Amino acid sequence: MKIHDWYNGPYPARVRIALAEKSLLSRIEFVSVNLWTGEHKQAEFLRLNYSGTLPLLELQDGTLIAECTAITQYLDSLDDNPTLTGRTPVEKGLIHMMTKRAEIEFLDAVSVYFHHATPGLGPEVELYQNAEWGLRMRDKAVRGMHYFDNVLRDQPYVAGEHFSMADIAVLGGMIFAALVELPVPDECVALKAWHARVQERPSVQQWRAMVAQGDAQRR
Amino acid sequence: MKIHDWYNGPYPARVRIALAEKSLLSRIEFVSVNLWTGEHKQAEFLRLNYSGTLPLLELQDGTLIAECTAITQYLDSLDDNPTLTGRTPVEKGLIHMMTKRAEIEFLDAVSVYFHHATPGLGPEVELYQNAEWGLRMRDKAVRGMHYFDNVLRDQPYVAGEHFSMADIAVLGGMIFAALVELPVPDECVALKAWHARVQERPSVQQWRAMVAQGDAQRR
Ligand SMILES: N[C@@H](CCC(=O)N[C@@H](CS)C(=O)NCC(=O)O)C(=O)O
Ligand SMILES: N[C@@H](CCC(=O)N[C@@H](CS)C(=O)NCC(=O)O)C(=O)O
Repeated sequence: MKIHDWYNGPYPARVRIALAEKSLLSRIEFVSVNLWTGEHKQAEFLRLNYSGTLPLLELQDGTLIAECTAITQYLDSLDDNPTLTGRTPVEKGLIHMMTKRAEIEFLDAVSVYFHHATPGLGPEVELYQNAEWGLRMRDKAVRGMHYFDNVLRDQPYVAGEHFSMADIAVLGGMIFAALVELPVPDECVALKAWHARVQERPSVQQWRAMVAQGDAQRR
Repeated sequence: MKIHDWYNGPYPARVRIALAEKSLLSRIEFVSVNLWTGEHKQAEFLRLNYSGTLPLLELQDGTLIAECTAITQYLDSLDDNPTLTGRTPVEKGLIHMMTKRAEIEFLDAVSVYFHHATPGLGPEVELYQNAEWGLRMRDKAVRGMHYFDNVLRDQPYVAGEHFSMADIAVLGGMIFAALVELPVPDECVALKAWHARVQERPSVQQWRAMVAQGDAQRR
């Protein structure tokens, strides 16, 4: 299988962490698509993924699966041991809900802030910016941090008792927030404690090592 | 089970059609949340769904599942016969991808257009509007129609050979587009043919009948 992505992107991180959780990294060939030169918005890549976003999974037979949630759903279904997307109907429902909520209320909001109210990927890539919208999305993301902090006061993981795709989505938000230097408010103690805890997971450490390696190669 | 929704909303339509596809309508008690008075943005509802959107599923034990995709995933998992969300890993991945794409590129874009560049739900509910962003999203939605038209030139359904949650998501886009009077371009013949075809499904006809009944009650 191939993953088209960019080594330190926050959405790519979601799939790389999922791959590590599922012990699938060794089966993946990573294909680099340079976000900073806007390769993901050029015709060649848009033919593979209409939305022009990373990551993108390409199977041996050429089947293309975009969208982190869809890719994770695919990967987690390969081994009849759905550790990330839920076993029972209720688990599946709650994990999908919390994953989507992590996107809408946090990760995607940070992304819009980055692309619209900061220089983003630079003037060659950010051809249209709506700064007012970007700033609203920044504020939404901060409210989202408070929301997830509240959730994590009552339960150890984002969708309940177990680590899941929803935790990885919130982690994507934390990764993106760090990149754009949007701090987690001090009051969000449960969110910070959860963050420290998931940092210890081998999957997250493997992801960090891959990013460090990528940084070193580009130096 | 309870569904909190508004009888003719395009997102509620997605879950009502899914319920009809799964022959589950008789097990549902519908609880009306009035979009036009902004009930979904008031504290009482926000405690149930942080995002303040409809529909919302409430199980007998009080478990709450928001987000159309998550609700559909739950419903489709109840009977070990996942007709809407896929059987194989590849089917699951493609259906989740196309569902998300239907949202990002079409349905959600129409929704942002409605809430930001038209009077939307009225001045009492639409406390902030960004018309420029709304108009961009309208244009994105029209491009989305062309994209799905292209997809449907090559295959009978949005995610491949079978009707799925992804078709229901595109149908949600068509329903919302009709409400805001955003016409489907004449050139989109495959999209129009698919639309005519899915209208014939008993589930869609049941949904139409429920809307007609709701209209009559409110007259
Ligand atoms: N909905 C997509 C979003 C992916 C996404 O936004 N990826 C970033 C890379 S970190 C990207 O491609 N951004 C470029 C852009 O939006 O212009 C997913 O969940 O996979
Ligand atoms: N992401 C949500 C979106 C649902 C949604 O936007 N529903 C509409 C009703 S048709 C709504 O609540 N709109 C009110 C608003 O966004 O203010 C889902 O897929 O369920």
